[in-house]
Amino acid sequence: MRHFTHIADLGVDGVAAVLDRALELKACPQRTLFDARVLAMLFFNPSLRTRVSFETAMLRNGGSAVVLSAGQDTWKLEDRPGVRMDGDRPEHIRDAIPVLCTYIDALAVRCFAGISDRDADEQDTLLRTIRELATVPVISMESAREHPCQGLADMLTVREHVGALQGRRLTLTWAPHIKPLPLAVPHSFLLTAAACGADITVAHPPGFELHSTVLDEAARYAQESGGMINFTHEQRAACAGAEVVYAKSWSPVEVGNATALLAQHSDWLMDLPLLNQADVPARFMHCLPVRRNVEVSDAVLDSPLSLTVPEAHNRYFIQVAALDLLLNGGSDA
Amino acid sequence: MRHFTHIADLGVDGVAAVLDRALELKACPQRTLFDARVLAMLFFNPSLRTRVSFETAMLRNGGSAVVLSAGQDTWKLEDRPGVRMDGDRPEHIRDAIPVLCTYIDALAVRCFAGISDRDADEQDTLLRTIRELATVPVISMESAREHPCQGLADMLTVREHVGALQGRRLTLTWAPHIKPLPLAVPHSFLLTAAACGADITVAHPPGFELHSTVLDEAARYAQESGGMINFTHEQRAACAGAEVVYAKSWSPVEVGNATALLAQHSDWLMDLPLLNQADVPARFMHCLPVRRNVEVSDAVLDSPLSLTVPEAHNRYFIQVAALDLLLNGGSDA
Amino acid sequence: MRHFTHIADLGVDGVAAVLDRALELKACPQRTLFDARVLAMLFFNPSLRTRVSFETAMLRNGGSAVVLSAGQDTWKLEDRPGVRMDGDRPEHIRDAIPVLCTYIDALAVRCFAGISDRDADEQDTLLRTIRELATVPVISMESAREHPCQGLADMLTVREHVGALQGRRLTLTWAPHIKPLPLAVPHSFLLTAAACGADITVAHPPGFELHSTVLDEAARYAQESGGMINFTHEQRAACAGAEVVYAKSWSPVEVGNATALLAQHSDWLMDLPLLNQADVPARFMHCLPVRRNVEVSDAVLDSPLSLTVPEAHNRYFIQVAALDLLLNGGSDA
Repeated sequence: MRHFTHIADLGVDGVAAVLDRALELKACPQRTLFDARVLAMLFFNPSLRTRVSFETAMLRNGGSAVVLSAGQDTWKLEDRPGVRMDGDRPEHIRDAIPVLCTYIDALAVRCFAGISDRDADEQDTLLRTIRELATVPVISMESAREHPCQGLADMLTVREHVGALQGRRLTLTWAPHIKPLPLAVPHSFLLTAAACGADITVAHPPGFELHSTVLDEAARYAQESGGMINFTHEQRAACAGAEVVYAKSWSPVEVGNATALLAQHSDWLMDLPLLNQADVPARFMHCLPVRRNVEVSDAVLDSPLSLTVPEAHNRYFIQVAALDLLLNGGSDA
Repeated sequence: MRHFTHIADLGVDGVAAVLDRALELKACPQRTLFDARVLAMLFFNPSLRTRVSFETAMLRNGGSAVVLSAGQDTWKLEDRPGVRMDGDRPEHIRDAIPVLCTYIDALAVRCFAGISDRDADEQDTLLRTIRELATVPVISMESAREHPCQGLADMLTVREHVGALQGRRLTLTWAPHIKPLPLAVPHSFLLTAAACGADITVAHPPGFELHSTVLDEAARYAQESGGMINFTHEQRAACAGAEVVYAKSWSPVEVGNATALLAQHSDWLMDLPLLNQADVPARFMHCLPVRRNVEVSDAVLDSPLSLTVPEAHNRYFIQVAALDLLLNGGSDA
Repeated sequence: MRHFTHIADLGVDGVAAVLDRALELKACPQRTLFDARVLAMLFFNPSLRTRVSFETAMLRNGGSAVVLSAGQDTWKLEDRPGVRMDGDRPEHIRDAIPVLCTYIDALAVRCFAGISDRDADEQDTLLRTIRELATVPVISMESAREHPCQGLADMLTVREHVGALQGRRLTLTWAPHIKPLPLAVPHSFLLTAAACGADITVAHPPGFELHSTVLDEAARYAQESGGMINFTHEQRAACAGAEVVYAKSWSPVEVGNATALLAQHSDWLMDLPLLNQADVPARFMHCLPVRRNVEVSDAVLDSPLSLTVPEAHNRYFIQVAALDLLLNGGSDA
């Protein structure tokens, strides 16, 4: 049984295979891929794109989806092992997950980072525990460490709208926000781009480093794929040579000081001049949702340079391909 | 691409065509009308009839529906243009709607009137903006100005249970309530009945006038269809000659004074004697939900004169017909 | 038209027939049992197993399900007859249920016990009223008095994992909890086991008696089936000779004094020594959700003696069989 919760489940070759399969299924939709199969989608956090793109990935291919909001549709779920459960969470994932799996063919889970403890987030304990308890394939809809379907959809979008990924100049730039955000999306962009052999520049203010374990993993992928990763604190220079600029906010290393650190760097707002530094302007990407005029200006988001809509659309194709891998082995045979 | 958010999208001939198509589909259900098609239903407000009748309209005809509660399943959605999004709404409809449309075949939206500003409600900015942003057909599940599927279901019910609509004597009467309610339902009843050529009497206390722009639109339809519209402040007389009495509460023009105005007219409670003034008693209609014994007495709602259940059932057939129009062009060919 | 809301709807022979049909459908799944049929699931309370097992029962057999949370997706529902509805519940079930039924083929309802009034809970007024108002078959997803699909799934699990039910030694033991819980599950275990001819021991502290009307009903079933029912206040002795121990917490007769009474009996925590008193240890069952280390120890729940996962899985098969009975008459012909 295969799971897909982290880019490490695929590795460099697996990333390429899913991208190829997604393009194949985009060109030739196969309406019976998931006939009579049921995906349960368990949300610990809200969603728009992820919810609808996963649900329609099942519905449009002969399957169906059961959508569950933990603690709202279901009981609040306890996840700490060995506790005396006398608080406000009447059911343990140790009971809920094996039971849920008996009714379904695959399980999709969304559980965001807590943000207050970076190392805990990197360890991704909740998702990894669910994965261990599950008796059907588990797919991530974003967890504390990564948002792997987002990373794959990002690369598919670059490949379609800019060109082959090998050596492609991609800049990931931090963006301002009103509050500290998870690192899952920048982590996944970095890991996936590295696995695809891109020439990556990561720009952020001092103190906003990504998690070192993820950086090490990305470096290994880059070495294997022939990619490159550079880091800088200079946003303008980082965008100057880029073919694609990917903006995203994330929390600082010192979360306790986040409010001050965020306020200090509100000038990292992504605006059009950053994209228009070369003869060929850079294309713009963002995973959405985006706070307009806080993270990114209206001018950027409403310009023809923005790829946010096709990028979100590609979530659907990536997820059909990933679910095909988990449920059918991913081949046509 | 066609949308259906207001009666003006159909006009007099279009209203007749949807009613005919609904009757045709009611007589001969076609189980594959929406094969492999997905409707997203975006709710800014709660629902029972609308939710289930739209969802089953897709499910019973080969399609499926994705149900989204804005700000609950999804992020809270900002709709004001050009704002710096530093408040509690992390996603803009300008991003959310185009993305959502990439996954689906049609979009149904419910966004109630705010009530505090009549002219803003009449302008229906949120629904009209969503419609502009959408790349798939949009259908209204009630917005600030109208509830057009309700109006059509009302006319279908009159046609089935009373007879042909031309010249039919229909009375719309205001009813008491514990709080000011939107004008969408009375607006839609009036517009649709006028488009069908009915002989309409609208009864309400002074100060509870419907919106003048809607009255003007209804007058144009009546002129085209050969219908009539009269207004009165006398509930009893208005019901005396009616073949159908349609009760509904709505807010007064001076909303700031609503509590006092509502309390003043609690004697407009719809009760059996109002229906039983002629040899043939009037049939009773209401869109539901209804506050029993505040708006309408138990005696009326539980009497055989009440058409509320078949009226609600007809929502299903109208919506199958309207979705057929949007998704298939509405013809059998 | 048949309903299934209480074990009395089936009687001794009907219970056996549903169990047989569930085993038959488990051995030979029939993917088109509910083709084009729609089940509405109306929840007044949250759910995990019930939600997913009912929804997949429809989805995996060609049908579909519409899931409604009363007061969340829908309006808050009033159920008192004859009231002036000027409170916070804008729709009456007297209007909502007949309307809902026009869109669907069957209606599943979950409405938990209020607990504060035992006799009111036993009378099950809300579910019985819904059943009277409904124009399609109604099935219970747990109401104040019973959780009949749970009881049937429990018996199916015993039959599969321990053996034929006639004379089988089953012990139902009260378990501690942090708050008073409904009696529906112990009621249904008792009624169903009695209908199956089991040799039942019910153990609970003094003051935690089940409802006398239910006890009388169970006694009648036991007499008809050749079963036995004994009661005791000694948990250890009750478990000593059992082949199956079923643990569940429920509220005391004097609910006003529940906190003190619950605290007094925290030593009824189900632990391994209670199961391991004979050469062949007893199997363990619980309907879930379970508060680990309050009701039942981790050691029990994680031991191979526990049947909680197959027990929950059997909810699916029981519900397919019960829905087949309601929608198709339950035969293969």
